[in-house]
Amino acid sequence: LSSRLPRVGTTIFTVMSALAQESGAVNLGQGFPDFDCDPRLPQAVTAAMQAGHNQYPPMAGVPALRHAIAHKVASLYGRRYDPDTEITVTAGATQAILTAILALVHPGDEVIVLEPCYDSYVPNIELAGGTVVRVPLVPGTFRPDFDRLAAALTPRTRAILVNTPHNPSGTVWRTADLQRLYDLVADTDVWLIADEVYEHMVYDGQTHQSLATHPGLAARALIVSSFGKTYHVTGWKVGYVLAPAALMAEFRKVHQFNVFTVNTPMQHGLAAYMADPAPYRGLSAFYQAKRDRFRAGLARTRFGLLPCEGTYFQCVDYSGLAVPERDLPEAAFCEWLTREVGVAAIPLSAFYGDGFDQRVVRFCFAKRDETLDAALQRLARL
Amino acid sequence: LSSRLPRVGTTIFTVMSALAQESGAVNLGQGFPDFDCDPRLPQAVTAAMQAGHNQYPPMAGVPALRHAIAHKVASLYGRRYDPDTEITVTAGATQAILTAILALVHPGDEVIVLEPCYDSYVPNIELAGGTVVRVPLVPGTFRPDFDRLAAALTPRTRAILVNTPHNPSGTVWRTADLQRLYDLVADTDVWLIADEVYEHMVYDGQTHQSLATHPGLAARALIVSSFGKTYHVTGWKVGYVLAPAALMAEFRKVHQFNVFTVNTPMQHGLAAYMADPAPYRGLSAFYQAKRDRFRAGLARTRFGLLPCEGTYFQCVDYSGLAVPERDLPEAAFCEWLTREVGVAAIPLSAFYGDGFDQRVVRFCFAKRDETLDAALQRLARL
Ligand SMILES: CSCCC(=O)C(=O)O
Ligand SMILES: CSCCC(=O)C(=O)O
Repeated sequence: LSSRLPRVGTTIFTVMSALAQESGAVNLGQGFPDFDCDPRLPQAVTAAMQAGHNQYPPMAGVPALRHAIAHKVASLYGRRYDPDTEITVTAGATQAILTAILALVHPGDEVIVLEPCYDSYVPNIELAGGTVVRVPLVPGTFRPDFDRLAAALTPRTRAILVNTPHNPSGTVWRTADLQRLYDLVADTDVWLIADEVYEHMVYDGQTHQSLATHPGLAARALIVSSFGKTYHVTGWKVGYVLAPAALMAEFRKVHQFNVFTVNTPMQHGLAAYMADPAPYRGLSAFYQAKRDRFRAGLARTRFGLLPCEGTYFQCVDYSGLAVPERDLPEAAFCEWLTREVGVAAIPLSAFYGDGFDQRVVRFCFAKRDETLDAALQRLARL
Repeated sequence: LSSRLPRVGTTIFTVMSALAQESGAVNLGQGFPDFDCDPRLPQAVTAAMQAGHNQYPPMAGVPALRHAIAHKVASLYGRRYDPDTEITVTAGATQAILTAILALVHPGDEVIVLEPCYDSYVPNIELAGGTVVRVPLVPGTFRPDFDRLAAALTPRTRAILVNTPHNPSGTVWRTADLQRLYDLVADTDVWLIADEVYEHMVYDGQTHQSLATHPGLAARALIVSSFGKTYHVTGWKVGYVLAPAALMAEFRKVHQFNVFTVNTPMQHGLAAYMADPAPYRGLSAFYQAKRDRFRAGLARTRFGLLPCEGTYFQCVDYSGLAVPERDLPEAAFCEWLTREVGVAAIPLSAFYGDGFDQRVVRFCFAKRDETLDAALQRLARL
């Protein structure tokens, strides 16, 4: 049984969540909240089920949800996407990204990823028969390095995967970054796949720079977002994709033969809930308070704090701890931290194709204040 | 923008459902019930949401659901699948089949489909870089043709897709078919992907012959099923896959980078609902009554009835109608029938790679008796 993905094991998120549970550790590994969603949201789903919305929705998604998405995107980013031809609801953002890659990438095409990156991108490209081209973000700051990106472009480059706000580093693109990206691709046939699932978590007055705000980029971009992250329902597995009609037509050809369509009652519930913009408009403030609490606590430990401009992730450098722990590679450090200290984290090496190790791990702060405090108490002992 | 699936348009199910709606036709096209599910099922989902089951479940699925599936499969088919390593919950059967193909098929591998077949199989194989090998079912009876299947096997054959009960023809495999399939593959490295989503709709005292009942086949098979079909919730998009552990490990590598995991509250609701075997044990009798009512009505029309041993589909031959309709190709006939007669159907040609046309269309009888009667009244006018 020869493997299509010989270098792939179980995702780090699954491994660390299982280890956290087994060890009774505070789980700051896999990114998900340990608090519940707004009760109005499940109530809206219950109403949809009771109204009999239990059969196949249209392939592209429930029209009311696509209209609500169009409205939100237009109001936040100033671009109108046609709900009929330019918006598709997906079974989460991961499914959207695989589908986008399968729809665009022909065998032998090159696809650029900016490392560190979410662990599904590289196997997704491999499954499509594409060649992965890894371009590092600037070491230390994790900002896009446009000179190295320019150097990586070739006539065989089919697509670039970009991600802002960035998992795992928490960096957020600036308007100048959009323009620099545009300058690089303007005269090419390169498509863009933009992972913007943390769009509503940006701090300190910065704003999310969606590719949708830049007409030149939006014309060649599939933009991916997620309701799971925004509404504290990671287990519902509903996301969406925005793209110009011609690009979306190719996306849908693959989408219809992947999941065909997405959970009907959840879509109706989300459509009803989206009528109120307060939950997503208030999300950055909600998470900034958690970020500040968590960072203040970490500042009293021996961990080195990296910047966090967005997402619900905080990276820390552990090279200031005592030996022997400071010398452990990231994966071993995370295992030790989970088992012996009782706090689960994710090694940054899991986001690099070559397992690059910089003694940095990622914590998720989408947790109740008590959970964060309990983790901080344990971490302060080091 | 060069397409990965140049010969693919929008699926026939989407096209016909849209046309039916636009024409106010009775929709016997796309396969879904026009009646609601058992209210206990959404109630169980509501309870799960209220209990806070809204975050990521384990990648392979909620343990209680995997245990309930293992229990059902063991009680019906006598094979024990290990819930931890041999069962994975999927976002519907279509996602399961693409994932299985991506996990097994290397570029250049040959994959055999038995035509007519569900319209996702061929594009799925193409996306994986495989070569599609089409083997026709016996014309007229739609039974597997093992001589032609034997002739199609080569050293490059990687997998065979089988489907029983069969969409669109409604034929059901016999125990002898399983043994003949086994005789063909026993000494090969060929894997099997078995689409058994209509497993609980088999009529006239026949029984579903799951590949799980045959140890030699089960050892090399990914078996796919669907809760949407069985529980009248096609819009929930939850299915599952059974496979021996080594095969399942490869499936999960791809699954985790496709959808990652599946809707948590739906999984909990389904797990609770599965405790009662009556709904799936009683499904064949429920649908047999509908099949009998629909066939009795069709017998009074000029349509020719094909056999229906299973599924919720009834195929009819329209070559006995008046000219000019009897001479229309199937797709044009379905459009005419929808627009002018007010009954939507699916052309069998949509299930053939070369559009083979035999003047046969498929009706779905998963409908309220009033709906079936209204359709029959319209069809009787021809
Ligand atoms: C899909 S599981 C992982 C969740 C996540 O996006 C992360 O932790 O980075
Ligand atoms: C996934 S849409 C089509 C439903 C179905 O399986 C069919 O009608 O054949």
